[in-house]
Amino acid sequence: MEKILKGACIFAQSGGPTAVINASAYGVIHTALADPNITKVYGAAHGIKGVLGDELYDMDMEDPEELKLLMHTPSSELGSCRYKMADPDKDETDYRRILEVFRKHDVRYFFYNGGNDSMDTCNKISKYMQASGYDCRVMGVPKTIDNDLFGTDHCPGYGSAAKYIATSVAEVYKDACVYDTGTIVIIEIMGRHAGWLAGAAALACLAGAGPDLVYLPETDFDMDAFIADVSRIYGEKGKCLVAVSEGIHYADGTFVSEAKVSATDGFGHAQLGGLAARLAQVVKVRTGAKVRGIELSLLQRCGAHLASQTDIDEAFLAGKTAVESAVSGVTDKMVAFKRETADGQYRCVTELLPLTVVANTEKKVPLNWINDAHNGVTQEFIDYALPLIQGENSRVVENGLPRFARLKKIRA
Amino acid sequence: MEKILKGACIFAQSGGPTAVINASAYGVIHTALADPNITKVYGAAHGIKGVLGDELYDMDMEDPEELKLLMHTPSSELGSCRYKMADPDKDETDYRRILEVFRKHDVRYFFYNGGNDSMDTCNKISKYMQASGYDCRVMGVPKTIDNDLFGTDHCPGYGSAAKYIATSVAEVYKDACVYDTGTIVIIEIMGRHAGWLAGAAALACLAGAGPDLVYLPETDFDMDAFIADVSRIYGEKGKCLVAVSEGIHYADGTFVSEAKVSATDGFGHAQLGGLAARLAQVVKVRTGAKVRGIELSLLQRCGAHLASQTDIDEAFLAGKTAVESAVSGVTDKMVAFKRETADGQYRCVTELLPLTVVANTEKKVPLNWINDAHNGVTQEFIDYALPLIQGENSRVVENGLPRFARLKKIRA
Repeated sequence: MEKILKGACIFAQSGGPTAVINASAYGVIHTALADPNITKVYGAAHGIKGVLGDELYDMDMEDPEELKLLMHTPSSELGSCRYKMADPDKDETDYRRILEVFRKHDVRYFFYNGGNDSMDTCNKISKYMQASGYDCRVMGVPKTIDNDLFGTDHCPGYGSAAKYIATSVAEVYKDACVYDTGTIVIIEIMGRHAGWLAGAAALACLAGAGPDLVYLPETDFDMDAFIADVSRIYGEKGKCLVAVSEGIHYADGTFVSEAKVSATDGFGHAQLGGLAARLAQVVKVRTGAKVRGIELSLLQRCGAHLASQTDIDEAFLAGKTAVESAVSGVTDKMVAFKRETADGQYRCVTELLPLTVVANTEKKVPLNWINDAHNGVTQEFIDYALPLIQGENSRVVENGLPRFARLKKIRA
Repeated sequence: MEKILKGACIFAQSGGPTAVINASAYGVIHTALADPNITKVYGAAHGIKGVLGDELYDMDMEDPEELKLLMHTPSSELGSCRYKMADPDKDETDYRRILEVFRKHDVRYFFYNGGNDSMDTCNKISKYMQASGYDCRVMGVPKTIDNDLFGTDHCPGYGSAAKYIATSVAEVYKDACVYDTGTIVIIEIMGRHAGWLAGAAALACLAGAGPDLVYLPETDFDMDAFIADVSRIYGEKGKCLVAVSEGIHYADGTFVSEAKVSATDGFGHAQLGGLAARLAQVVKVRTGAKVRGIELSLLQRCGAHLASQTDIDEAFLAGKTAVESAVSGVTDKMVAFKRETADGQYRCVTELLPLTVVANTEKKVPLNWINDAHNGVTQEFIDYALPLIQGENSRVVENGLPRFARLKKIRA
């Protein structure tokens, strides 16, 4: 039997925002507010920095209907941070301060919503509390559009970004092939080290409007092979749509976005603009075609209007499971997803992974899900990603515009 | 009484695509297919070039259900062109050829869907047919995301682009204010000569997530005033969201996107990347803040998933009205929109304007709809644009992806 633990909880958000991170927030807050063991629900302003600064919002004071709107409000509503805590063996100042704040508010539950780094932070805080003899259950709630968290089938946030990317690529495809004069379009997609997002562009092929070429950071990029690929397809079809991960790099590890490119390719100086603009310039010089570079930029991670309902539901589930597990006695775990496809239908169930396993390990696209020419993904990738973009969301629209949650954020 | 005219019709699309231009196509094709006076419905491949090349698709052969999907298929499904016909007084080769093709297929109705230039083309073709004694009714169907067509309250395509822009700006706003470390975001919006699209960014303020500053091309841009505006707001709020039209220019007429900028602003050479990247660099150098430039690029004109239902309905109406008017005896007119707000409710009715009035005149944002500081729009602008973005569309989704129309395009 679990030991009953009564006390307050703190929920905090970390790292880059996603379209559904607030659905996880709602999963935690809504479940915690209803739980008799949780005496008070606090939201920390700007992640762990809000805990350190004792900047806590009283979630009990919020209008339940506004909280519900978190399900469709993009970005981290409580604010995020990129604060890296010290190793407690070297400097335990921050940890002492967290313990102090926890004691002050009788915090017995800590839920941290974030990516790799956040799971590491969770882990260190939990270990410190244990060593200090302070009874507190610490749970990680995953999120990242990058989908690179180890141990979980996928991460909340990925499905919605994938849906945004696939839909936008399909629409751009329609636009790009409108003139009978040829055109090449290069779309830059987030993902510095893992190609999950760039690969999602290939889903647009199912709409009959997909990219001709997709380049992921899991393999080395070769500019000559790239130009040859583009030229061949442009020659055959009079158009070419390319999706590239921002993280593509040469064999020596240099990011293409940062490498010096020869003056014959149109630029020898450090350039403004991103990778898409760079590649567009190179392709233009080498092929003479009309080329356009498009960077999906922040849009792909905050596009809540296109969030996948599957992703929203799972993000909520992750938050809810974290609270329910903690109350039942679990600590030091991250909620993870397991895919069950026994009957051929996609089904997602949660499991709990030790924070130590998850922290600081990156999950990349398996190399056998990338084609031999390293310019596309295989059917395995499509089969993996497609279920995650299903479901049109039922966001609230007011005046033709998104109706985001408006929290009072009353300081505790 | 109108003279009954029986014969075939040709429908063609021109200029840059929009999210709803195919809804106008469906308005024309659907109405024409049902009209007993129209013996055959042809769609020209790539606008007037398809007429010149006798590349006509037989619309009678299409599946009605696929045609219906045109209502939610972005871009010009029949293909577009940017072909500029000669002045018939100087060279009538093209006009002779068009007459030849019209005679060959007994074409008695010509519907051309486009912007300023297309209305000019329509007008010239019509005059030539009249001078040649060939009985043919010519109607213009307006479209342009730029909303710069003279004589009409607004243009099909604008409302959807405006909705896409306002929604995306609101989402980026949420994302941009997530960290407690300051940030400045500059969003570049289409509109070379008119600021209707950039102004639409201000609609996001109604979602509580709007831009702090908006710059339109109707007024001269002053870099120092701009930096002062941004610095002031950044100083006050720790963040600043800016919407700029791609067409902003200095007092001497030079586009900011093309002007040489001093090396002290971080670049002295011709640069890749668009205006957003340029301005971001200048702001970064001058303020030291973290700055991000985002270009909405093609996404804003092909974002059918966010198309306003009002815009879709009106685009259809424009096509339908063109056919009905032509059959009833009208020629040489463009379908225009008139706003009726007698009861305080927005209502859009059609009227017919002479092509000669519309052709080659640009409609800009009235200067009194721009604030005195030239860094925002007034309530009049909001009141004008808001009704146009209303209505969530009911697009068909398959596999979580847009289901676009798949036409057979059988050559006549």
